[in-house]
Amino acid sequence: MHQEPVRHEAVETLEGWYVWHDFRRIDWVRWKEAPVATRTAATAALISFHRENLEHRARRQGSYAAFAVAGSEADLLFLHLRPTIQELNDLKFQLAKTPFADYTFPVYSYISVVELSAYLAKPGVDPMADPYVVSRLQPALPDMQYVCFYPMSKRRQGSDNWYMLPMEERRRLMKSHGQIGRQYAGKVVQMISGSVGLDDWEWGVTLFADDPLHFKKLVYEMRFDEASARYADFGPFYVGVRQSEHDLRRLLACT
Amino acid sequence: MHQEPVRHEAVETLEGWYVWHDFRRIDWVRWKEAPVATRTAATAALISFHRENLEHRARRQGSYAAFAVAGSEADLLFLHLRPTIQELNDLKFQLAKTPFADYTFPVYSYISVVELSAYLAKPGVDPMADPYVVSRLQPALPDMQYVCFYPMSKRRQGSDNWYMLPMEERRRLMKSHGQIGRQYAGKVVQMISGSVGLDDWEWGVTLFADDPLHFKKLVYEMRFDEASARYADFGPFYVGVRQSEHDLRRLLACT
Amino acid sequence: MHQEPVRHEAVETLEGWYVWHDFRRIDWVRWKEAPVATRTAATAALISFHRENLEHRARRQGSYAAFAVAGSEADLLFLHLRPTIQELNDLKFQLAKTPFADYTFPVYSYISVVELSAYLAKPGVDPMADPYVVSRLQPALPDMQYVCFYPMSKRRQGSDNWYMLPMEERRRLMKSHGQIGRQYAGKVVQMISGSVGLDDWEWGVTLFADDPLHFKKLVYEMRFDEASARYADFGPFYVGVRQSEHDLRRLLACT
Amino acid sequence: MHQEPVRHEAVETLEGWYVWHDFRRIDWVRWKEAPVATRTAATAALISFHRENLEHRARRQGSYAAFAVAGSEADLLFLHLRPTIQELNDLKFQLAKTPFADYTFPVYSYISVVELSAYLAKPGVDPMADPYVVSRLQPALPDMQYVCFYPMSKRRQGSDNWYMLPMEERRRLMKSHGQIGRQYAGKVVQMISGSVGLDDWEWGVTLFADDPLHFKKLVYEMRFDEASARYADFGPFYVGVRQSEHDLRRLLACT
Amino acid sequence: MHQEPVRHEAVETLEGWYVWHDFRRIDWVRWKEAPVATRTAATAALISFHRENLEHRARRQGSYAAFAVAGSEADLLFLHLRPTIQELNDLKFQLAKTPFADYTFPVYSYISVVELSAYLAKPGVDPMADPYVVSRLQPALPDMQYVCFYPMSKRRQGSDNWYMLPMEERRRLMKSHGQIGRQYAGKVVQMISGSVGLDDWEWGVTLFADDPLHFKKLVYEMRFDEASARYADFGPFYVGVRQSEHDLRRLLACT
Repeated sequence: MHQEPVRHEAVETLEGWYVWHDFRRIDWVRWKEAPVATRTAATAALISFHRENLEHRARRQGSYAAFAVAGSEADLLFLHLRPTIQELNDLKFQLAKTPFADYTFPVYSYISVVELSAYLAKPGVDPMADPYVVSRLQPALPDMQYVCFYPMSKRRQGSDNWYMLPMEERRRLMKSHGQIGRQYAGKVVQMISGSVGLDDWEWGVTLFADDPLHFKKLVYEMRFDEASARYADFGPFYVGVRQSEHDLRRLLACT
Repeated sequence: MHQEPVRHEAVETLEGWYVWHDFRRIDWVRWKEAPVATRTAATAALISFHRENLEHRARRQGSYAAFAVAGSEADLLFLHLRPTIQELNDLKFQLAKTPFADYTFPVYSYISVVELSAYLAKPGVDPMADPYVVSRLQPALPDMQYVCFYPMSKRRQGSDNWYMLPMEERRRLMKSHGQIGRQYAGKVVQMISGSVGLDDWEWGVTLFADDPLHFKKLVYEMRFDEASARYADFGPFYVGVRQSEHDLRRLLACT
Repeated sequence: MHQEPVRHEAVETLEGWYVWHDFRRIDWVRWKEAPVATRTAATAALISFHRENLEHRARRQGSYAAFAVAGSEADLLFLHLRPTIQELNDLKFQLAKTPFADYTFPVYSYISVVELSAYLAKPGVDPMADPYVVSRLQPALPDMQYVCFYPMSKRRQGSDNWYMLPMEERRRLMKSHGQIGRQYAGKVVQMISGSVGLDDWEWGVTLFADDPLHFKKLVYEMRFDEASARYADFGPFYVGVRQSEHDLRRLLACT
Repeated sequence: MHQEPVRHEAVETLEGWYVWHDFRRIDWVRWKEAPVATRTAATAALISFHRENLEHRARRQGSYAAFAVAGSEADLLFLHLRPTIQELNDLKFQLAKTPFADYTFPVYSYISVVELSAYLAKPGVDPMADPYVVSRLQPALPDMQYVCFYPMSKRRQGSDNWYMLPMEERRRLMKSHGQIGRQYAGKVVQMISGSVGLDDWEWGVTLFADDPLHFKKLVYEMRFDEASARYADFGPFYVGVRQSEHDLRRLLACT
Repeated sequence: MHQEPVRHEAVETLEGWYVWHDFRRIDWVRWKEAPVATRTAATAALISFHRENLEHRARRQGSYAAFAVAGSEADLLFLHLRPTIQELNDLKFQLAKTPFADYTFPVYSYISVVELSAYLAKPGVDPMADPYVVSRLQPALPDMQYVCFYPMSKRRQGSDNWYMLPMEERRRLMKSHGQIGRQYAGKVVQMISGSVGLDDWEWGVTLFADDPLHFKKLVYEMRFDEASARYADFGPFYVGVRQSEHDLRRLLACT
């Protein structure tokens, strides 16, 4: 009883750009009822928004991609990365004021910040001096066809309590976990963003691949790893297909 | 404490067509208020969509069936199978643009991919060379009168943690589970689709039967099997009645 | 580890009519705004629907009763029993097409099938030859003033896992449970309907009484019985007052 | 295994008036858009409803009070007590037909019945002969400024299972619990209403005080008592300020 | 079995101003459709409300700040502190009657009261005589750029039951917890408000910082502390950016 409270060391993390996953549904009834001129103007506003965000990506002042989400839960995912939350807010209100936004409504949203964990860091090396690390923290987002997103937390339940494990134990578990990820190198690109104190789960996981089957294989294999099997709680999962300007126009076109 | 992290082998799975369970409610107030000509056009659009999807089924480029769902939770289930998620998205936006869709709204949706597990596979046999396996992965969907759908996950809770069991133990449990299913051969046809990384649960289960009592008997008997009793978490359950073109016309007809 | 998977025997069940609990709210704002002629026509449609269903009850081709639900969660409960799910669907779409339905919206719904469990069956007796059993499986519904409905499941949680108990143990627990019910004979009539594979919980419990205090006393007493205390999970509870044609007219009348 | 099922004695309870907690939000946009004459008529309807219910209270044919709820979850709480559920239903439909109700919508509702538990009863005394007991079962509701409401259930979870405790143990726990309540005599008046079989939780707790800090202090102190610490699950909490006729007029007045 | 019920001492708390966290979304479609004159009047009403609340802050009769919330869950947070719940209600209805409120709708709300716990109190000192304590109980709210809000409760689950711990143990745990907070002195200002008996969780935590990364670092580090790791359950998290009058005008401006 009178022992000292347990307080294990938190792993050091490096943070990069802030991330907003903006999932929306299209209000198709109102969209189709709108006059052609209104739809034309709204589509132009979306395309302009899309281009502007791609320019931020090109100038490395942030990153961006648009996706068409599978299933009825959502139609579109706009994935934004920017250096500050203030800039994500500016984006949000800018989009809200476009005529396009009037024909959509938000269905899910996630705020986080790109994170690299030092569980696997080499001692004595300044990670921010490493261009690879910087490219991971301020990622351009890979040009792959499919995206998968889900939020997750580490479990704190009875004897399965991640936050009561010593650092050394967590390090071993995450190392094992990371090995699975590396087997998918070239097939799946993974972006981890931390959301403790920012949104309802502790991390957001965004995966990119040209074949969505890799998402299933990777996440399934990881589930057998003790770090997931005993210590992970998962939120909703979304899968989407990347949209070019041309794709967005096609998606919205009504005859 | 310093033992190696547990990481059991994930069972090999074979994947086939992607699946979209699209549950909708009809907005009856607006439907009945619509002019007869609008209803006629909307019904024609639905029938055209229905026929087109049946043709995909006939050409073995996918599969499809429509159902009238029991209870107030949903009115219709459109069950689509296609080789890619991109094609399911195309379908989704095609339907959204029909005048029929304006009188419905989505209430539940599930994205998964038809899956065969190799728990029960014979060693040394290439399963994809087996026409039976291929017919299971790219199923035509049986012409039975009733459908049952529910999503599920394997439990990871305290001492009931599926993903911490060794492969051999999981194999035994699934073999026992499969025996129950086989007792319903000829009465119930079962389609398992995996959704790890694609949707909120780990699997979708779609059952077909001519007598819905078989759904109840089968699922109830399975619940006493350790694989379900200790290791299954279930999502919502839906039951529906297959709809022919004639049935759909009758369902929508207003005098 | 290498022991055989546990698979206890499922109790045999007898099934009767399918059941639809259809809970609705009235859209009072739109109802009161409607022209008197519209309200008159809509009320007539409801009364006609009500009579038709009572005739099914009279002809023993199903059963039916209407209730006014207490509290804000719902206003009306239409309780339907029919030999098939197809007939419940026909009913559903028939009601949707009445002008009355336009002024209501569904708030809860439950699909199940009347069930008798053979936990308490006498060996060597064919239960379907027993007119009492048949009257329980195809019940006319008692003419009592109050109704109580709730769905429930048997618990599968850690050491409180109903489906891991041997048949003999479950039989003892259900026998004890049934004894409580019998103490309320004449006061409370109970209809159990199974919904495994049909809806989100495993059973629906519908109680009838002339004094709603009996619902509270019965359910409370049962909660101390091990079958409930350790092994029951409960869904939402609803209580309602039976409505005659006259009552329905009074409920809907606006001055 | 072969031991007798546990079935502890349910405590005897005495029941009084039925209770409806009716939480509503005001649709301010529509309220402010309504013509002044409409608002005047609607306000008059509310005041008439308010007075009528206060007369029931005065005549001891039930009780009633109105509150303005803090926060955005609800604006108003109408708290009704009546001898039967039928009368609560009559009230509900009466209110729905007033023009005032058109500018509100229900957000939470609770049906229960005032209850006194005999855990603390003196043996050999007929409690219903005690005017104090009757005044508790058919309470006038104290004229205090603030109200607090929350529903709760006794926990049935692993080793914290209230319904598996012997009567003697429950009695000791409730006695300890009651001592805390008595320390707040004069500061907090408590009304316990049972809802097993009537609504989603097992009890409703309604507290009255002139200083809402007493709610916080009382509920917090009780939480350290084993009866709450191990055996209570809580639903949503609401706090409100009593409204006189004058207050209601002020609340609704728009310039 | 026959031991005395456990009832540990509740820690003494000091309470200050009541708090209303009022999270809203803007109804952008209706806002943009409104005539310019209406938008001008509504903006003026908001600015007037904003100024009035800042004057309360200046006169130390309460406190206030406005924030633009990140993500789609909410657009605005109005954070109000006042001496009584009655005054928070007055504020609420005053805002509801402004033309600005017509273009917003509430999405989350939290009622609590600023609280200081005496876990860390020095014995023999009257805390209310301490100007520092009073400034904490009636806080002006710091002029920092970012806000973080989340509600939380102490866990009561199996062997992780905060309310079953002796005072001395809780004191040690909270002392350790407080040490983490103090490491962020100057970077993060923390306001704890109690909501037992007032809202659905037990506490609200409001953090202020000029760099939102400090929220993530602080909350993450705390999660490894036993007080959080074993004993904390968390609700939703929100992060926002402080809004001046100028910022609010900019946020609402449409061209």
